[in-house]
Amino acid sequence: MVDRIEKNFFALNCPYEDAEAVIFGAPFDGTTSFRPGTRFGPSAMRNESIGLESFSPYQDKDLEDAPICDSGDLDLPFGDAEQALDLIEQETTRILDDGKLPIMLGGEHLVSLGAFRAVAKKYPDVVVLHFDAHCDLREDYIGAKLSHACVLRRIHDIVGDGRIYQFGIRSGTKEEFEFAKTHTKMERFRADNFDEVLALLRLSEKPVPVYLTVDLDVLDPREFPGTGTPEAGGLSFEDLRICLMQLKDINLVGLDFVELSPPYDASGCSTALALKILRETLIMKYGK
Amino acid sequence: MVDRIEKNFFALNCPYEDAEAVIFGAPFDGTTSFRPGTRFGPSAMRNESIGLESFSPYQDKDLEDAPICDSGDLDLPFGDAEQALDLIEQETTRILDDGKLPIMLGGEHLVSLGAFRAVAKKYPDVVVLHFDAHCDLREDYIGAKLSHACVLRRIHDIVGDGRIYQFGIRSGTKEEFEFAKTHTKMERFRADNFDEVLALLRLSEKPVPVYLTVDLDVLDPREFPGTGTPEAGGLSFEDLRICLMQLKDINLVGLDFVELSPPYDASGCSTALALKILRETLIMKYGK
Amino acid sequence: MVDRIEKNFFALNCPYEDAEAVIFGAPFDGTTSFRPGTRFGPSAMRNESIGLESFSPYQDKDLEDAPICDSGDLDLPFGDAEQALDLIEQETTRILDDGKLPIMLGGEHLVSLGAFRAVAKKYPDVVVLHFDAHCDLREDYIGAKLSHACVLRRIHDIVGDGRIYQFGIRSGTKEEFEFAKTHTKMERFRADNFDEVLALLRLSEKPVPVYLTVDLDVLDPREFPGTGTPEAGGLSFEDLRICLMQLKDINLVGLDFVELSPPYDASGCSTALALKILRETLIMKYGK
Amino acid sequence: MVDRIEKNFFALNCPYEDAEAVIFGAPFDGTTSFRPGTRFGPSAMRNESIGLESFSPYQDKDLEDAPICDSGDLDLPFGDAEQALDLIEQETTRILDDGKLPIMLGGEHLVSLGAFRAVAKKYPDVVVLHFDAHCDLREDYIGAKLSHACVLRRIHDIVGDGRIYQFGIRSGTKEEFEFAKTHTKMERFRADNFDEVLALLRLSEKPVPVYLTVDLDVLDPREFPGTGTPEAGGLSFEDLRICLMQLKDINLVGLDFVELSPPYDASGCSTALALKILRETLIMKYGK
Amino acid sequence: MVDRIEKNFFALNCPYEDAEAVIFGAPFDGTTSFRPGTRFGPSAMRNESIGLESFSPYQDKDLEDAPICDSGDLDLPFGDAEQALDLIEQETTRILDDGKLPIMLGGEHLVSLGAFRAVAKKYPDVVVLHFDAHCDLREDYIGAKLSHACVLRRIHDIVGDGRIYQFGIRSGTKEEFEFAKTHTKMERFRADNFDEVLALLRLSEKPVPVYLTVDLDVLDPREFPGTGTPEAGGLSFEDLRICLMQLKDINLVGLDFVELSPPYDASGCSTALALKILRETLIMKYGK
Amino acid sequence: MVDRIEKNFFALNCPYEDAEAVIFGAPFDGTTSFRPGTRFGPSAMRNESIGLESFSPYQDKDLEDAPICDSGDLDLPFGDAEQALDLIEQETTRILDDGKLPIMLGGEHLVSLGAFRAVAKKYPDVVVLHFDAHCDLREDYIGAKLSHACVLRRIHDIVGDGRIYQFGIRSGTKEEFEFAKTHTKMERFRADNFDEVLALLRLSEKPVPVYLTVDLDVLDPREFPGTGTPEAGGLSFEDLRICLMQLKDINLVGLDFVELSPPYDASGCSTALALKILRETLIMKYGK
Repeated sequence: MVDRIEKNFFALNCPYEDAEAVIFGAPFDGTTSFRPGTRFGPSAMRNESIGLESFSPYQDKDLEDAPICDSGDLDLPFGDAEQALDLIEQETTRILDDGKLPIMLGGEHLVSLGAFRAVAKKYPDVVVLHFDAHCDLREDYIGAKLSHACVLRRIHDIVGDGRIYQFGIRSGTKEEFEFAKTHTKMERFRADNFDEVLALLRLSEKPVPVYLTVDLDVLDPREFPGTGTPEAGGLSFEDLRICLMQLKDINLVGLDFVELSPPYDASGCSTALALKILRETLIMKYGK
Repeated sequence: MVDRIEKNFFALNCPYEDAEAVIFGAPFDGTTSFRPGTRFGPSAMRNESIGLESFSPYQDKDLEDAPICDSGDLDLPFGDAEQALDLIEQETTRILDDGKLPIMLGGEHLVSLGAFRAVAKKYPDVVVLHFDAHCDLREDYIGAKLSHACVLRRIHDIVGDGRIYQFGIRSGTKEEFEFAKTHTKMERFRADNFDEVLALLRLSEKPVPVYLTVDLDVLDPREFPGTGTPEAGGLSFEDLRICLMQLKDINLVGLDFVELSPPYDASGCSTALALKILRETLIMKYGK
Repeated sequence: MVDRIEKNFFALNCPYEDAEAVIFGAPFDGTTSFRPGTRFGPSAMRNESIGLESFSPYQDKDLEDAPICDSGDLDLPFGDAEQALDLIEQETTRILDDGKLPIMLGGEHLVSLGAFRAVAKKYPDVVVLHFDAHCDLREDYIGAKLSHACVLRRIHDIVGDGRIYQFGIRSGTKEEFEFAKTHTKMERFRADNFDEVLALLRLSEKPVPVYLTVDLDVLDPREFPGTGTPEAGGLSFEDLRICLMQLKDINLVGLDFVELSPPYDASGCSTALALKILRETLIMKYGK
Repeated sequence: MVDRIEKNFFALNCPYEDAEAVIFGAPFDGTTSFRPGTRFGPSAMRNESIGLESFSPYQDKDLEDAPICDSGDLDLPFGDAEQALDLIEQETTRILDDGKLPIMLGGEHLVSLGAFRAVAKKYPDVVVLHFDAHCDLREDYIGAKLSHACVLRRIHDIVGDGRIYQFGIRSGTKEEFEFAKTHTKMERFRADNFDEVLALLRLSEKPVPVYLTVDLDVLDPREFPGTGTPEAGGLSFEDLRICLMQLKDINLVGLDFVELSPPYDASGCSTALALKILRETLIMKYGK
Repeated sequence: MVDRIEKNFFALNCPYEDAEAVIFGAPFDGTTSFRPGTRFGPSAMRNESIGLESFSPYQDKDLEDAPICDSGDLDLPFGDAEQALDLIEQETTRILDDGKLPIMLGGEHLVSLGAFRAVAKKYPDVVVLHFDAHCDLREDYIGAKLSHACVLRRIHDIVGDGRIYQFGIRSGTKEEFEFAKTHTKMERFRADNFDEVLALLRLSEKPVPVYLTVDLDVLDPREFPGTGTPEAGGLSFEDLRICLMQLKDINLVGLDFVELSPPYDASGCSTALALKILRETLIMKYGK
Repeated sequence: MVDRIEKNFFALNCPYEDAEAVIFGAPFDGTTSFRPGTRFGPSAMRNESIGLESFSPYQDKDLEDAPICDSGDLDLPFGDAEQALDLIEQETTRILDDGKLPIMLGGEHLVSLGAFRAVAKKYPDVVVLHFDAHCDLREDYIGAKLSHACVLRRIHDIVGDGRIYQFGIRSGTKEEFEFAKTHTKMERFRADNFDEVLALLRLSEKPVPVYLTVDLDVLDPREFPGTGTPEAGGLSFEDLRICLMQLKDINLVGLDFVELSPPYDASGCSTALALKILRETLIMKYGK
């Protein structure tokens, strides 16, 4: 039979059973208040991953034959955020129960809550590393508690004070920045303290379970215009790449990359950059 | 003071108090399952209305000084369809209570349910004239009962059998078309029987209250590409215009035009056409 | 030397001296009030003409070796309409003085005034055939007498009553339509009387000199979305093509095609259609 | 496990073994001379097929559980037309050998040659029904014999005179139209004689094997702008749909739909229309 | 009454009477020689300002309840630069006469001349701080003295030598750079001397009145692609932000931000960045 | 005669005979595997060069009256890479034989092979300076030896080991990076050693002939999104500009700039940047 064009991320074809990590898409943007479009993120990334090499010149390693399964995109209902979060939590729980690492691609940032609920049940002492341009710490948004603008606040509801580390933040209400002062550890604009935070985590006797959530709008819009609410003055690709490379010996128990909105970047550069961030992260953990 | 650029539809500047009709936008697309964007419909129409003359060469009348108020766009929460419908119902009720005609611009088709609930409370014997490419008669859509794909079914829940007339329908599930056979009066593909239906309504001794809901995707995509789910084989602008012109002596108690999605028509033709349909309808009722 | 890609319209390479007709672009849109872009019309048409055959299956004739010169695009100053018109008039006069037919491509409709001034000096008894969606009969537009919205009024200033025939008109102010009733011969919406008008012109003993000005927005936006002010309900390509084919024995002394705005039609269909209209017109006169 | 979003056409999930028909994509546009992009046709159609119902209100039948397999997209080399055609021929041969109907989605029109070579080997007396805006009858194109502009000429090389029926043709060189006069049966502009041709085919004692190749640019650009070389004056969706519906009792042995170029229609209407044509054709043959 | 979506910049709702500063749009691009579109700048900024927080994490202050009035967009005639400038001058004079600070949003750079004329009448000793990629020092542009390419030259006509400070300049004719050597203080490419210039101004006994004009194309196109004539090698958002923050104690008597052209940045990043620059400037002066 | 808009690069009008350097376009993208569009590079650059000044503020020199001829764009066949390369080689040979410097604008990177073949025949000891994001060192790509992904490997076939210097490389297969280790001199990610390499070349007694090939995707996509395969983490405009400025005393015998794909950057910034790079290079050699 004549060869077909691959449909999986980076042509990964490890079966679920044999996989150590599982990628899935969560194409939901039902609470996006400004410009929707992140629902198209996972499929755009999958389509475009054909154009990207599986080899990393940064790490001199390759993704070929990595024990990672591309598990497709969840079929999520628009207009019902709670049900969407339930389905995401179910899927994440299944992956965790099978002893694998869940890697979720958004979708709007609210989807992180679904995955995190599953992770926090299994790892109650989990710590959150959060890259974002926005605080996402509102108590509610026009009355709704389940909103992309509240997602870290909901996560704080679960983990409490001092367990959330925020980087690159440069937008929010006065109240959100006030809240952060006493309840989270926030670094504005930059991620210069990321190494320090990791050093702290490494001090623990037994490995601290860590959930990583990357709202890709933490990147400067000049490199990543394809997002709903672009905020000038962000991290560079290189900044973010270097941070993520420090996670090699960290006990990652779940991670997500969210808020890529392909319709707002016709050049495809944002999708390509998101893929490169994903590839480098995967190779760091599983490359050969 | 130097003149400013008008911000209202067609530069209408009648105060609410003096108005006989009130236009308002309902920029909500939270349940849109395929391609969002109708949330941008009302503001695009308002912006572009500068480019359209207030005079109709079809009717030889003008919209200048018409007793119509542009009341702005409602601030609706995404991700909470029920609350959005409540707010729309409140606003429509206010307009009806003040003895004025509500004219709503969507937004996705679900918004019609909010306005219709208010109308049906005041006019329990209301009849619905429905232009659309899609049946919109599903019992639910991926579990959700409040969805653009269910809006006419929800309206049927209120008015019951034989009170809904559907025109131009050319897409739906087998079940929806089955449902229509016994519960609504549906004309597929065309609106050739529109005159007959109106003739029937005119037979009534006292004027039948009529709610008109126009999903603009009833138009052929060649004329109206700016919509989320384009369906070839639809009505022409001229077909729709002629139908609407028959409503002059009909007792309209509420109307809406929905599903314009400006991001999908960069040429602006769809927005311009929607405006022209709106202008002709307004002039038919209020032109001089 | 290796072949180069042609830069002229339809690869026409007849030198000016030997030409019977001369095409030139007038890339000016300085008075466009709504959405500019027609300045890009002539260059877009020239670039895209590579994709169009020089043979007409309608007329079974070819444009190859036709005595037509592509004379390039005038360098016109933006922000100074009078000077732009002067330059266009100069160029048209030169072509007329050399005994050739001027064929101008806009640009906004105001450019027609420059070419017409030259034509009217040589042919004081000239008659105007005008295809357009808009009346273009305003006395002034926000104070300016030189505006695309006034161009036919300015031409009327020159030729007086009864010498302008308008077709396809479907937009304008009440005053413009009033003016037309006594000063021009206008057919609204359609061009059904075009044949009759030509029949009338043919009655004259000596051939009546005719200037043809085609605002391409006379076409329905479904076929021609690439224009600044799209007006639904217009002529089809076939309608316009058939009209133009009647001009074979008419004494054309100047013609223009204006208001193509390529930025508003990314598909390129509008540019392709404008080229086809131009090709058929050229072949009608000069094809073999 | 949580439901995933379907990846196949119309959610078809019949295995290859049980299928009576097999759809595959041929994403190749390596010889496209003007504006490339048809390589994106098959994947765009597959992605967008989520938005289309599987039920046809025209035929009152559904595609659910139809014995049709979506076999994915071939991995074809750009810059080597001969090798691409070989791979397409191999795949088509496999499908034919397995007693199934091959249904190919382009890609540029040249891909039809690959499929047709396989079909003609199995059915030497095959007749070709060809819808197109262009003759595609050139002996060569800038020296190349394998070009989209030559594909019907290459097919003529195989089947000889009188076996190719062409409809909707409205563009080509003088030589191509000359060639058609003696070697093919061509109807210009329209497909009014399609019924007659089928009537003729039905006269044969044993069913004539028929290959159907539809260059979607046969449609008018107002309905189908998403193609590389738009030609005004074409068939409507309804024209084409009605033609195809006549094929119910015809012995189709292979078919293709080519030349959808999604990048040139950002509205998605062209892709949606192509899907609707495909759906109606599939339901005609396999719907229930 | 149900809440409406705000229409003013940053939801500012201070009445004109109570305002200390007045924002108005000058949507004019009539002399733009290359790619028009800045006429859409003010309305795009107003629409998008919904997506931006009113709080600045840079300054830890908020714009809420600031004494700033959004006064709408002037209705300016295209094709008549002199009249447009007159209207802008009238409006600026009114604001100055009422003791308020005029803040103008372009539009092309020529609009600055209108505002500056009013300012220079009230403050004859005004000094100009000019950020731009281009010199804008031509004596005329294709014969026209009123052109975006001449605006600083016209301002020089008013203030004379040594009163104009230019930053970030990286494009112009040989003559313009020659002119700058003796008549203005120009820093090429960068704004490293901005502090020094301000220090100089602070030396004066009584506060020097300063007019600030920011052509946003001074920014690097990688951050600000939405402009007519992008010039690589410009300032970063952070560079410009830091400069503007130095103006806190400077006697600003007028300011403008011009040359945002939304049609050239579909991602919306340029508009968002312009808004952020505006917000920071407003908060610097009026934030709490 | 009224002035025409210039059609040549930077309005260069030196005749071929008098020119010291000759620019020509090679609009070919027939082997592009991912996203085609570089075929539109040369014409986009030519059109947009109107918007760029001929004066360089970096070098304080002008391009006016420079001895450079714009020789137009070659007419190259798509789908036949070998023939396209032959034509490019012919043209380059002609230019070299006439004692002039060939400057080619792509098109995809494969076109460099055609020009280089001609150069290597005349200068067998030529050294290659190669800027690129990609290695381009594959032995073949899906079986094809003539592919954009193999072009430097084909050049290596001609010149052998140690004669190719690569800069900015950040993407490729494991095999390509392996190959580079022993056969070329490659600097990953940056071009920090460019000066050193030039210093080495300057050591030679007689000037080393140098061919410069710049794949513009070496630039970071934030500055240059208009390319088929964007790779984050590249050189800045300023990095590349400074490198090229070092070439003043180098014996350049041929150069090319390739892989600009205008359809992927609607803002035009990429085209503008490519032009600026070209302008600075030309002025470095021929400015006054």
